[in-house]
Amino acid sequence: MNKKRFYSAVSTLAAVLLTLGMLSTVAVGDQDPLPSWNEGTAKQSIIDFVTRVTQSGSPDFVVPEQRIATFDNDGTLWSEQPMYFQLFFAIDRVKALAPQNPAWKTQQPFKAVLENDMQALAASGEKGLLELVMATHAGMTTTEFEQTVKDWLAAAKHPRFKRPFTDLVYQPMLEVLAYLRANGFKTYIVSGGGIEFMRPWTEGVYGIPPEQVVGSSIKTKFEIRNGKPVLVRLPEINFIDDKAGKPVGINQHIGRRPIAAFGNSDGDLQMLQWTAAGKGTRFMLIVHHTDAEREWAYDRKSKIGHLDKALDEALTNGWTVVDMKQDWKIIYPFQLK
Amino acid sequence: MNKKRFYSAVSTLAAVLLTLGMLSTVAVGDQDPLPSWNEGTAKQSIIDFVTRVTQSGSPDFVVPEQRIATFDNDGTLWSEQPMYFQLFFAIDRVKALAPQNPAWKTQQPFKAVLENDMQALAASGEKGLLELVMATHAGMTTTEFEQTVKDWLAAAKHPRFKRPFTDLVYQPMLEVLAYLRANGFKTYIVSGGGIEFMRPWTEGVYGIPPEQVVGSSIKTKFEIRNGKPVLVRLPEINFIDDKAGKPVGINQHIGRRPIAAFGNSDGDLQMLQWTAAGKGTRFMLIVHHTDAEREWAYDRKSKIGHLDKALDEALTNGWTVVDMKQDWKIIYPFQLK
Repeated sequence: MNKKRFYSAVSTLAAVLLTLGMLSTVAVGDQDPLPSWNEGTAKQSIIDFVTRVTQSGSPDFVVPEQRIATFDNDGTLWSEQPMYFQLFFAIDRVKALAPQNPAWKTQQPFKAVLENDMQALAASGEKGLLELVMATHAGMTTTEFEQTVKDWLAAAKHPRFKRPFTDLVYQPMLEVLAYLRANGFKTYIVSGGGIEFMRPWTEGVYGIPPEQVVGSSIKTKFEIRNGKPVLVRLPEINFIDDKAGKPVGINQHIGRRPIAAFGNSDGDLQMLQWTAAGKGTRFMLIVHHTDAEREWAYDRKSKIGHLDKALDEALTNGWTVVDMKQDWKIIYPFQLK
Repeated sequence: MNKKRFYSAVSTLAAVLLTLGMLSTVAVGDQDPLPSWNEGTAKQSIIDFVTRVTQSGSPDFVVPEQRIATFDNDGTLWSEQPMYFQLFFAIDRVKALAPQNPAWKTQQPFKAVLENDMQALAASGEKGLLELVMATHAGMTTTEFEQTVKDWLAAAKHPRFKRPFTDLVYQPMLEVLAYLRANGFKTYIVSGGGIEFMRPWTEGVYGIPPEQVVGSSIKTKFEIRNGKPVLVRLPEINFIDDKAGKPVGINQHIGRRPIAAFGNSDGDLQMLQWTAAGKGTRFMLIVHHTDAEREWAYDRKSKIGHLDKALDEALTNGWTVVDMKQDWKIIYPFQLK
């Protein structure tokens, strides 16, 4: 077969398979798509959902372009203890920038950070945290900020595991992401975290490209600097992608309602409600942190990853609740043999 | 060959082709990818660019995930005369809603609309237009608004061509969109128009899905209404995706810099500058409206689609300038034989 006829044959084959709605099932095959999940209702509910919406002829079949799945990040795709990883970044940035900002030695919340006084930092409250974020996330171009995040990730270590923060992603959730994509889903992050803090690494770590990351943001401004167009990051909140902000962010960025949503805290409740309220088959999942030994155990009383109302609603509505300790064979990829 | 082995063979074939970087060229073949374009420098510049960035081994090769192309909408993908089509929509909505708003009879800019007094409407200026937009685009849920746009498009006719507004898209640009996508590009709209005004129809008309539409927006609010989660459209500007707002919108939604950008007015200049300033091979194109007979002719003196600085900069920098009259065999798809 010459080159041209060969392409033509492949092209025809692909068209036929697409028409039959079969290409999506090729990638999965007979292998267990979720090998790091113990057998149980959580694992089965994921597989049942994917099978129902992808089987052509099924009454629950969903066309590929409508297969949108949204994932919270902190506590759903990677760990969030003892504090959000982005806060480690902000603290490290304050320390790095301190020599250029001598006033910080006597000025809260910076003083607290420089003295490693976590109590005083907590006492500075939301206002203090916001000041910290603005001082460390604004004032540079988008390109400069991206490089700063990359440099930090390459050097910083998590205090408990002594490993790069991006090692602390959940292997079972990586398998869910890959399984969904192999079945024609577009996977999105919808996080309260900073959109530009996540984009530099989500493609490499999760296989989620920048255009599929939704998050909180500060305003940016287009300028010509030394004859070169740049986007400058301003110390002003643009959007908070948390709680009731999540459906707003989803609508703004995606313009479609997800058919599957994954979260771990009350900050994800509205995203799950919004997803559940659409027509047809829907899938909602909560990761419940129950494993103090291998990861952390927290829910209703935790400030970080506070899970209370969303847990009640999950139980009432029959959403999938993952018991991390029971359902996951391993937590992190580095524990794979 | 049984079914399973057949799939496996196709899967292998596809993997081989992807590895060789050949799948992207399959769809194009030897046919003219731009049949509605006359031979000339504009057409050739598009083909040269696509060939350079997609040929593996080429020094200008760009990996598929970086092949982002952004298109202005009004005047670049569809017509924008005698006024922006979204303004026809707003005017028709004012008329439809007038019975429920008796005060509009004596209140500008609504009075002007109801009396078809375009001079008085123009005199109401930007403030008047904003009031018109808020009165017709806000106050309902996102789902309700989507339906309103669809219903309007199904019924409304353009005053000159007596055809649905979505018939007035440019056939040569549809070919560019298809050609780019066949070569692994993601095509985006980046328009000053309303994001939710475009999303209901861009997939059907341009093959551009909702998640690849960037536009101006009003704020929305998540609420539970009668036990059902909804997003309510508020009479408050969220973002103006025009001029210096375009690179901001691109960064916010896509998180990558385009390698190709298409516009037709000074409102697109910053998007073209932002695109041009990236590393590697870039493509910038301006549609110049030069065809008063088949479409409209306007540029430096026009209020709608004002093209002045961007035209100068295009000429200075060697960006492609499309002379609609010379370069396009036909304008609209309904002129195809």
